Amino acid sequence: MKSTQSFEEKSITSRAEDYNQWYLDIIEVADLAEHAPVKGCMIIKPYGYALWEKTQRILDDAFKKTGVQNAYFPLFIPERLLKREEAHVEGFAPEVAMVTHAGGKKLEEPLVVRPTSETIMYDVFSKWIRSHRDLPLLINQWANVVRWEMRTKLFLRTTEFLWQEGHTVHATYEEADERARMMLDIYRDFAENYMAIPVIPGQKSESEKFAGAHATYTCEAMMQDGKALQFATSHNLGQNFAKVFDVTFLDEQSTKQYGWQTSWGLSTRTIGGLIMTHSDDKGLVLPPKIASIQVVIIPIVPKEWDAELVGEETRALAENLRNIGLSVHVDKRDIRPGEKFYEWEKKGVPVRIEIGPKDIAANTVVVARRDTSEKKVFPLTNIAEEISVLLDTIQVDMLMRAKAYREEKTVSVDTWDAFVEKIEAGNFVLAHWSGDAKVEAEIKELTGATIRCVPFEQPEEEGVCIKSGKASHKRVVFAKSY
Amino acid sequence: MKSTQSFEEKSITSRAEDYNQWYLDIIEVADLAEHAPVKGCMIIKPYGYALWEKTQRILDDAFKKTGVQNAYFPLFIPERLLKREEAHVEGFAPEVAMVTHAGGKKLEEPLVVRPTSETIMYDVFSKWIRSHRDLPLLINQWANVVRWEMRTKLFLRTTEFLWQEGHTVHATYEEADERARMMLDIYRDFAENYMAIPVIPGQKSESEKFAGAHATYTCEAMMQDGKALQFATSHNLGQNFAKVFDVTFLDEQSTKQYGWQTSWGLSTRTIGGLIMTHSDDKGLVLPPKIASIQVVIIPIVPKEWDAELVGEETRALAENLRNIGLSVHVDKRDIRPGEKFYEWEKKGVPVRIEIGPKDIAANTVVVARRDTSEKKVFPLTNIAEEISVLLDTIQVDMLMRAKAYREEKTVSVDTWDAFVEKIEAGNFVLAHWSGDAKVEAEIKELTGATIRCVPFEQPEEEGVCIKSGKASHKRVVFAKSY
Repeated sequence: MKSTQSFEEKSITSRAEDYNQWYLDIIEVADLAEHAPVKGCMIIKPYGYALWEKTQRILDDAFKKTGVQNAYFPLFIPERLLKREEAHVEGFAPEVAMVTHAGGKKLEEPLVVRPTSETIMYDVFSKWIRSHRDLPLLINQWANVVRWEMRTKLFLRTTEFLWQEGHTVHATYEEADERARMMLDIYRDFAENYMAIPVIPGQKSESEKFAGAHATYTCEAMMQDGKALQFATSHNLGQNFAKVFDVTFLDEQSTKQYGWQTSWGLSTRTIGGLIMTHSDDKGLVLPPKIASIQVVIIPIVPKEWDAELVGEETRALAENLRNIGLSVHVDKRDIRPGEKFYEWEKKGVPVRIEIGPKDIAANTVVVARRDTSEKKVFPLTNIAEEISVLLDTIQVDMLMRAKAYREEKTVSVDTWDAFVEKIEAGNFVLAHWSGDAKVEAEIKELTGATIRCVPFEQPEEEGVCIKSGKASHKRVVFAKSY
Repeated sequence: MKSTQSFEEKSITSRAEDYNQWYLDIIEVADLAEHAPVKGCMIIKPYGYALWEKTQRILDDAFKKTGVQNAYFPLFIPERLLKREEAHVEGFAPEVAMVTHAGGKKLEEPLVVRPTSETIMYDVFSKWIRSHRDLPLLINQWANVVRWEMRTKLFLRTTEFLWQEGHTVHATYEEADERARMMLDIYRDFAENYMAIPVIPGQKSESEKFAGAHATYTCEAMMQDGKALQFATSHNLGQNFAKVFDVTFLDEQSTKQYGWQTSWGLSTRTIGGLIMTHSDDKGLVLPPKIASIQVVIIPIVPKEWDAELVGEETRALAENLRNIGLSVHVDKRDIRPGEKFYEWEKKGVPVRIEIGPKDIAANTVVVARRDTSEKKVFPLTNIAEEISVLLDTIQVDMLMRAKAYREEKTVSVDTWDAFVEKIEAGNFVLAHWSGDAKVEAEIKELTGATIRCVPFEQPEEEGVCIKSGKASHKRVVFAKSY
């Protein structure tokens, strides 16, 4: 399939030429988002927002199956609440936006625009929870949050972003930890089986964990430039916040106990990850399960007298596909088919079907895959089932391809020189590290690489820290990151 | 059915005693929402938020059927943008919240937390639209907005609230006006056929219209105290904003034209209207189509040896009802049935089913309607279909009851004394008014009543203004309002 570059359209910078510009070009040509008149903020356009709507629907269903309920807490947090948990305020204070005036007057106490909602929620949870019978408390909210970032980038890091934040309270450490891991596994499943993004689930180092958490679990994905993207995180908060916000319950012996808490979130940044995992130099590539349009049908009408026949067969085909639950768009615009091919290619629609008088005469259609650019003739008999199977194949292939790419760019190293070289070349590097935060900071300072996670599934293996030579029992994942 | 008042529960103030306190009590006992630590803000609790989720799902589907697409625009609006449309800024400036500091620094230009998004959207629309082929542009967003209100009340008027705001651009006045009316009709349909709230669709007077609009269409509902609640509004914006924000397009003759715009919104305040339309002195009453739990099943286990039998039959019954798409909750808690009846009554679940060993022996169940408190024995044969029919009946009955109540409290008057008396007594008053804004203001000053709307379906009728005696061709709806 040849792209027709003759239209007056923005061309896409290639990945090899300028990876960053390529990413921004994809967002522009696929019509996903754009910069807002407010610095660092983003306008999510309908075709981009549809990806977020699909994400919301899939995750919301998965959360609810585990007993989580949605609620809504205020956008504004009194400054004194944010300040109550020491590590938390240190983590967030530098990047908050403050409302100081409202209704024409100066406020007595400035309000923080929520960067995350632990503090306001837990202040309220302390009133909601009385006894062990009120536990577990399983709350989620879909909301906008604001973090004043210096360097922003569409989807990946914006001053305001959309996310969900789950917050739970449990009677025991074990139950809270199990919940934190359960929610991480929902994110892993969503990443792999919907967004077709392979992720490495693991635990953050002490330096990289969430401000105020006992432990942070994460799913780390590799982008095409070899950099890591934190896909989503889930925190075992221990009793840190419970002690500060007095989240207590009476246990079965009527003894007052502090609750064990978790919080977990996934944001619109995952859409940045989706774009960077699959797209190519021709445009966006979407996995079928997250695409708002799974199949685009392009009627080919070479002569006017073909219009009625092609129109009828196109309608029948679209209905046929919709009847088995596929999301289908028929592009009936009065422009050349090549122009349409080009547009839907840029927009990453997984499957394109071309149907014209010759196809109809042969009882076939031409089917093109976006991910491989492969074009094949399909018989019209059983077309719905065939397309459905093809979409499943594309979904699996995209995950496998991304996984193979990541594995190719993941290396184990045992010398410092090799470490520096492999990090510089844009790899995920599995290396020994003894757990010393100072050494971690030194490595970051020297190479720009951070510990993305201590993978859950990394086998025990005796070795020595890549930098300090101290004894180590496990390899961890180092990489540069977004 | 007798309420057991012996539990340590908050009792509900009766409507007759204190209508305002009754409303707040219902919200508390039904666990819908509560005040946040930030003045004027609200925490929407899971049982209350579920009503908003249902609202979102129903309206979102209805919008999308008319071609509307969702998008997301930033929370923050640069002050200069808000100030561009004169009437608009006058309407909103007194109630905006301002971000003046962020990231530890004073901002060069203060940011307004969106009270509504006309200004930021239209600034962007002016770049999106080039030609008549880009029209109509049909955008909606689900978002939080902030208006600094002096006197707040849960759901009805809160500093931050949740809503959807639709914004469209068209090539002609007629098409824009048709769209504004179409969206109002979606709100009317939602009010009447889902929330069972009868509404009067009509047009706002010049004084009551939206700041910056050409015409505002509204759906007005009557609460049980006879006051009006503006359920939702839809604005024909004419070219007012288009001229200020340069929303232009090239028509088929390649001549530059200003776009014709609409905006329309519905907020969490409708949940306040839902509560106030149907609830009674025993608690919340929910119409089946908006209830998150439509049927609650209470297993009655008088002796321990009944547990297995009752458990099995309860499971079968619940599955039976869920199979036809009903939302069912089985209350298996180890507390007395009376306590459960009382709780679900307060929470407004439309249908309660009691099932015990005697019922099972007789192949029946006891079914109680929340709206009428009626209790009946139903045969277990065909129970799912019977319950489904009962829910439909309840849905229709609730609308009819609310409609009858409104009609009883709606009067036509032709003298000023009668007008004052009927307004004072909490009625919707149909009276002649000549269209003079000064007289409208005088009437408001003297009685507290405003013109809720000029109903679309009010017949032409010659008369004289109730206050000024000037000639009038139509009656309008006067009432006190929320």
